[in-house]
Amino acid sequence: MNYKIRDISFAEQGRSQLEWAEKHMPALLSIQKDLEREKPLKGVKIAAVLHVTKETGVLMKTLRLAGAEIALAASNPLSTQDDVAAALVKFHDVSVFAWKGENEKEYYSNIEALLDTNPEIVMDDGGDLHAYIHERGISNVIGGTEETTTGVVRLKAMEEQGILKYPVIAVNNAFTKYLFDNRYGTGQSAIDGILRATNILIAGKVCVVVGYGWVGRGIASRLRGLGGRVIVVEANPLRALEALMEGFVVTNMKEASKIGDIFVTATGNIRVISTEHIMNMKDGAILSNAGHFNVEIDVEGLRKIAKSSRIIRPFTEEITLPNGNKVYLLADGRLVNLAAGEGHPSEVMDLSFSNQALSVVYLHKSKSKLSPKVYDVPSEIDERVARLKLSSMGIEIEQLTEEQIEYSKQWKYGT
Amino acid sequence: MNYKIRDISFAEQGRSQLEWAEKHMPALLSIQKDLEREKPLKGVKIAAVLHVTKETGVLMKTLRLAGAEIALAASNPLSTQDDVAAALVKFHDVSVFAWKGENEKEYYSNIEALLDTNPEIVMDDGGDLHAYIHERGISNVIGGTEETTTGVVRLKAMEEQGILKYPVIAVNNAFTKYLFDNRYGTGQSAIDGILRATNILIAGKVCVVVGYGWVGRGIASRLRGLGGRVIVVEANPLRALEALMEGFVVTNMKEASKIGDIFVTATGNIRVISTEHIMNMKDGAILSNAGHFNVEIDVEGLRKIAKSSRIIRPFTEEITLPNGNKVYLLADGRLVNLAAGEGHPSEVMDLSFSNQALSVVYLHKSKSKLSPKVYDVPSEIDERVARLKLSSMGIEIEQLTEEQIEYSKQWKYGT
Amino acid sequence: MNYKIRDISFAEQGRSQLEWAEKHMPALLSIQKDLEREKPLKGVKIAAVLHVTKETGVLMKTLRLAGAEIALAASNPLSTQDDVAAALVKFHDVSVFAWKGENEKEYYSNIEALLDTNPEIVMDDGGDLHAYIHERGISNVIGGTEETTTGVVRLKAMEEQGILKYPVIAVNNAFTKYLFDNRYGTGQSAIDGILRATNILIAGKVCVVVGYGWVGRGIASRLRGLGGRVIVVEANPLRALEALMEGFVVTNMKEASKIGDIFVTATGNIRVISTEHIMNMKDGAILSNAGHFNVEIDVEGLRKIAKSSRIIRPFTEEITLPNGNKVYLLADGRLVNLAAGEGHPSEVMDLSFSNQALSVVYLHKSKSKLSPKVYDVPSEIDERVARLKLSSMGIEIEQLTEEQIEYSKQWKYGT
Amino acid sequence: MNYKIRDISFAEQGRSQLEWAEKHMPALLSIQKDLEREKPLKGVKIAAVLHVTKETGVLMKTLRLAGAEIALAASNPLSTQDDVAAALVKFHDVSVFAWKGENEKEYYSNIEALLDTNPEIVMDDGGDLHAYIHERGISNVIGGTEETTTGVVRLKAMEEQGILKYPVIAVNNAFTKYLFDNRYGTGQSAIDGILRATNILIAGKVCVVVGYGWVGRGIASRLRGLGGRVIVVEANPLRALEALMEGFVVTNMKEASKIGDIFVTATGNIRVISTEHIMNMKDGAILSNAGHFNVEIDVEGLRKIAKSSRIIRPFTEEITLPNGNKVYLLADGRLVNLAAGEGHPSEVMDLSFSNQALSVVYLHKSKSKLSPKVYDVPSEIDERVARLKLSSMGIEIEQLTEEQIEYSKQWKYGT
Repeated sequence: MNYKIRDISFAEQGRSQLEWAEKHMPALLSIQKDLEREKPLKGVKIAAVLHVTKETGVLMKTLRLAGAEIALAASNPLSTQDDVAAALVKFHDVSVFAWKGENEKEYYSNIEALLDTNPEIVMDDGGDLHAYIHERGISNVIGGTEETTTGVVRLKAMEEQGILKYPVIAVNNAFTKYLFDNRYGTGQSAIDGILRATNILIAGKVCVVVGYGWVGRGIASRLRGLGGRVIVVEANPLRALEALMEGFVVTNMKEASKIGDIFVTATGNIRVISTEHIMNMKDGAILSNAGHFNVEIDVEGLRKIAKSSRIIRPFTEEITLPNGNKVYLLADGRLVNLAAGEGHPSEVMDLSFSNQALSVVYLHKSKSKLSPKVYDVPSEIDERVARLKLSSMGIEIEQLTEEQIEYSKQWKYGT
Repeated sequence: MNYKIRDISFAEQGRSQLEWAEKHMPALLSIQKDLEREKPLKGVKIAAVLHVTKETGVLMKTLRLAGAEIALAASNPLSTQDDVAAALVKFHDVSVFAWKGENEKEYYSNIEALLDTNPEIVMDDGGDLHAYIHERGISNVIGGTEETTTGVVRLKAMEEQGILKYPVIAVNNAFTKYLFDNRYGTGQSAIDGILRATNILIAGKVCVVVGYGWVGRGIASRLRGLGGRVIVVEANPLRALEALMEGFVVTNMKEASKIGDIFVTATGNIRVISTEHIMNMKDGAILSNAGHFNVEIDVEGLRKIAKSSRIIRPFTEEITLPNGNKVYLLADGRLVNLAAGEGHPSEVMDLSFSNQALSVVYLHKSKSKLSPKVYDVPSEIDERVARLKLSSMGIEIEQLTEEQIEYSKQWKYGT
Repeated sequence: MNYKIRDISFAEQGRSQLEWAEKHMPALLSIQKDLEREKPLKGVKIAAVLHVTKETGVLMKTLRLAGAEIALAASNPLSTQDDVAAALVKFHDVSVFAWKGENEKEYYSNIEALLDTNPEIVMDDGGDLHAYIHERGISNVIGGTEETTTGVVRLKAMEEQGILKYPVIAVNNAFTKYLFDNRYGTGQSAIDGILRATNILIAGKVCVVVGYGWVGRGIASRLRGLGGRVIVVEANPLRALEALMEGFVVTNMKEASKIGDIFVTATGNIRVISTEHIMNMKDGAILSNAGHFNVEIDVEGLRKIAKSSRIIRPFTEEITLPNGNKVYLLADGRLVNLAAGEGHPSEVMDLSFSNQALSVVYLHKSKSKLSPKVYDVPSEIDERVARLKLSSMGIEIEQLTEEQIEYSKQWKYGT
Repeated sequence: MNYKIRDISFAEQGRSQLEWAEKHMPALLSIQKDLEREKPLKGVKIAAVLHVTKETGVLMKTLRLAGAEIALAASNPLSTQDDVAAALVKFHDVSVFAWKGENEKEYYSNIEALLDTNPEIVMDDGGDLHAYIHERGISNVIGGTEETTTGVVRLKAMEEQGILKYPVIAVNNAFTKYLFDNRYGTGQSAIDGILRATNILIAGKVCVVVGYGWVGRGIASRLRGLGGRVIVVEANPLRALEALMEGFVVTNMKEASKIGDIFVTATGNIRVISTEHIMNMKDGAILSNAGHFNVEIDVEGLRKIAKSSRIIRPFTEEITLPNGNKVYLLADGRLVNLAAGEGHPSEVMDLSFSNQALSVVYLHKSKSKLSPKVYDVPSEIDERVARLKLSSMGIEIEQLTEEQIEYSKQWKYGT
């Protein structure tokens, strides 16, 4: 077996990490047991480009126990946990090509190494791998999965242009994926990141949440739960109306910028906090971003007008404005939950990776029926993941009676 | 102009009712002003079968001011407000054929009178009118609207069977309709109905909400807001998981039936509270329904096993079970918000009827482009209604910049 | 046995009322069982001036079963339930002197009749009875209880002036009394009253709560639970700060008056909503009071400036202001929970009357040790009531270990 | 001027720290401005034993600007910020005797040095300084302040035993101190500490809060705000009843121990989580303490029965029980908000230290009127601090009119 990692001697420590992660990934663990017994992926070659973390480690182990042969590279050169990489090589025969701090050349050479294994199924996080395969030319690949919104958008564009060569399952679109990731995962971790960066008291503060999508909803309700006075800024009237009905104050950015103590962006759009808005702000305002990229706050523009700037605490930069006011930019406007916090808890990845594992099995089983399109995760998988999560938490949900199943069908089809 | 109502002399009193309703229907009022100026329905003949209430009165007045000629009958023989009917006839030249307490023969004869006007557009609440027209044979009708889920289900069945003869807009499917109606309208009014029927204290009580759809969500969050300990029973694992993540206790009906003080059903399904569950319940348990029909609680079965029964308060029936325990059935298991309360506030009908008014105009304008199908309310209308509601409440939402509109398009289509 | 009531033949119906009330007064019922066994009030003469309602009926029955001889008159001529009065006479040998609609002369003559029984213990609701006894001269009375804040204030003034002749237990000051009465009882019933009067939707409305004492706290948190955007107006900086830390918007009345949709007063003070404030308000504003008297809103002033006024719905009066705006005054500015709703649920009276029953027993047992002062309810009684309520709801609370009791003593006294 | 610190060259960096703290201590800053103008402490000698942090630095600076001469030592040898110490010496002429990492001998020698300055007013945090002064003999001291509950308990014991020699103001008892410190400060920071230690998802977890005092209330409501299913364990029936009425599930520790995912203690008592409880727990349970000492969880007992133990993450120890289950002990059972988090935000210390500053001034002004007792902070000071905080946040609260002030007096004294 081929591999290229930092140091195989880290394996024992990596095994502890995998054990700890498994404790918080009960749904995936339960799938692991089923797949280990059934071996539905016996001999199937898989290549995965994912963050090489302990949670990914559990996913890899699960697919191995299902019978697959796996090669793994990193989707981000900085997120690799070298001990996990070592444990995957030593104890689970995964061909890992990843280490923390790879340079760009090494990053692509590792992806090359992956593709040299002639994978049948490819798993990606961001769409780079899929793009690369299409460039280099497809051979064995019968299908793939994609973890992120960004990746799905790229793949859909490829589908529309008619150049997608194999079916891809958009794991990102599973209800159990985006509900957890966005409302609960980012909702909590964004606040965690803000508190770690600043140690401010939320109670009584005017908190401006810009964007009331899934992430914004999660953040707004949690800030309220901590005693914040929450203002929602939203351009979509349907979402704005819903925020209002949930009891939030709703206004536009111009007004909100004058009264906010803490600003959190979650729109997926650009410059939603502009330098003009920042010049309106109170002395001491805090600026943070929980949306996708570091473009939601106009950091570039802010730097241009700044009189001076200094780091006050880790991830907290004090910027003095032309009018003498100071604002505090967190994590340079990058995702505050990842930069200043630790990103998603294992519980969140449990759901996401349960969808991944079952989607890979589904791809293999259904290969003859699928076309080169972007597919949603089948609702049976989504529901199965929810059921596993619930039962792992000891929850028994209601079962419909025969009569009720019959009734709801009639109702659906008209009587 | 033809009409048939209780008493034209009620007109003055009816006018006061319309004024009061208009005060709480600012979005529809704003549409009224635009339509009065533009007269887009000049000479268009409309027949409507709706509850003849003050809110419907405002809708009829709006369509009249838009230029339409209108005939109106009642969708339910018991809900007609005779003073409103009189005001519509006297001050707004609407041909009303409705009075409170019509018998079945009168009800159908009124619908006949309506159809004798040769309407081009038909508005319905439940699907009876649409069914009747299809039976009797279509002549002038170019399209219709439907207010309810039940009606939409019937119309979709007709569409699937290929027998639908004209396009129908499913007003029920507008976001601004179902969000308000279900989560906020029924969410609040169901609790209002329970309190009027029982005058119990919610704080500290174990409240079991059966069904976590839009209605159940609204009820559960409001009961929590009143200090109840809320348990959610739900058969769909995705919804159950969401309820759990929102901090509710989730379990099945068997367990919940043993510990609940107050039960509220909102599933749309049958016998979700069975006699077996009722026999599990604590002495003093309260049973109510906020779902669609009086089938969610097995009232029939309950009556069969009851040792005795008496009315304790209006809408509150004490039923003694074979084991000597007493349970309290509200409003005979019918919709507690309508039976024991007053149903939806005018604010809720404002949104629903704004969609109705704009959908009628849309039908007329687009008649050449539409096929005999069930259509959703166009999202432009839905968003316009939301905008009008927000601005009537003095809310200014965020406006996207050119750059942001451009960015979000790129993002959508991939970069 | 002497008595004077409307009609003894109402007794059977009154018995049903008592049964229904007992079902929601489990703590008092449990005390009833203990007292019936122990008979601590054997032969003790009690005179009570209370609202003659079904809940008071259960209290009277309890004291009778404890062995007391009781005479009862009404604390308010309009609140007497004649069927309950009849049942108390017929089935429980209580000397009732009360009927619905007594005139002033009859009211005082009934109190006279009461005092003619030479009571040893007197129970009052408002202080009228205590004042009357002191005027007429004391003979047998060894002590009394007082239910209301108003009464306690009067009695404390008498104590300070050195004219109080017997010990009085201020039931109002029990934690289990005022917590339930104010935060939970009035908190819920005020909103119930507003909804019954108006049937408006709370979600999205700007709700101004004037006063952040126990009542205001309850109302504010429940309005938020229904989706309202809550603003708190408070003159005490400590309370204002607490409201702010709980996430409410805090401002003064001048600002709040410009933006509120619904106003609820709960300050115990005078003209907290003045005509000047009302002239600031938006067209359509709703005015209600949940404080003590109908002085919190300047109703008198409002009537003086009003251009016209009419009743729109029961308890809802539309008042047209000089500037043409309309405001809606609920229940004429009187307590909206009592006037437009049904006042406190039985569960609330359960706590209050459990304190009453145990305080009477305590007065009798401790008569030799008490001086002519106003006493708080002994904390043992308060805690016992809480324990009974909890266990009646099936709640088992934590028991301290010997070690823990010892530790907390050391801690208290210093180590 | 005498002093003993780590390194005077840290002064510049310390000045930045003071500036940052001042930004979040607006109430104290406003007091600082008044005192600087009035100089009420001109020439008064003060000795303070407090945590030498940036917030304490702002308090010292404030007293200096008020005219006092100050000596400062550390109340805890590990909490000293050496740069702040340097800045106080260099820029504010405070005689600091403190550095991070003093040994016990040095600690006491520093307190000696302090007393050698012959202080008139002494400020303490825990009561050590007061005890020491009483031991060594009082000379100049006219009064003191005490920051903590522990210290106040000790001083009250001294007062009861008649050995207290000077008046002490219990800053801890100010409403603006304990409300912020406990409900908001610890309420938020305890959760912050748990998240930093574990990075778990709160949503959907069963969170057991042991103790429903001020700290427990704050923690419970915030955990609920994050989507947790909160169970309250409480031995006091009044508090237990209140928790129930707020919608929490209330039960005893035995039952709670079987179902909890996360446990947080806040009782001030001993072994509230015993090894017996721990043996009941689910595999994976998390144990943390936010009460006063590390005795609330029986850590000693737990270590005795543990089969093995290892550190999984900073502040997270995995302990394997005899039955094979693993539990996770945070911060060794010490205060999780201090150990795993950063303790109170500056905003919290702002209130506490505003009370300190004004209490010192009050002591000096009122020295002739005070006896050797423990006094509460005068309510004028408490209210002034609240007012300053509110106005620093831009909040204008309601002002009573003359008529209202008069009315509330009448009401209070009876009419």
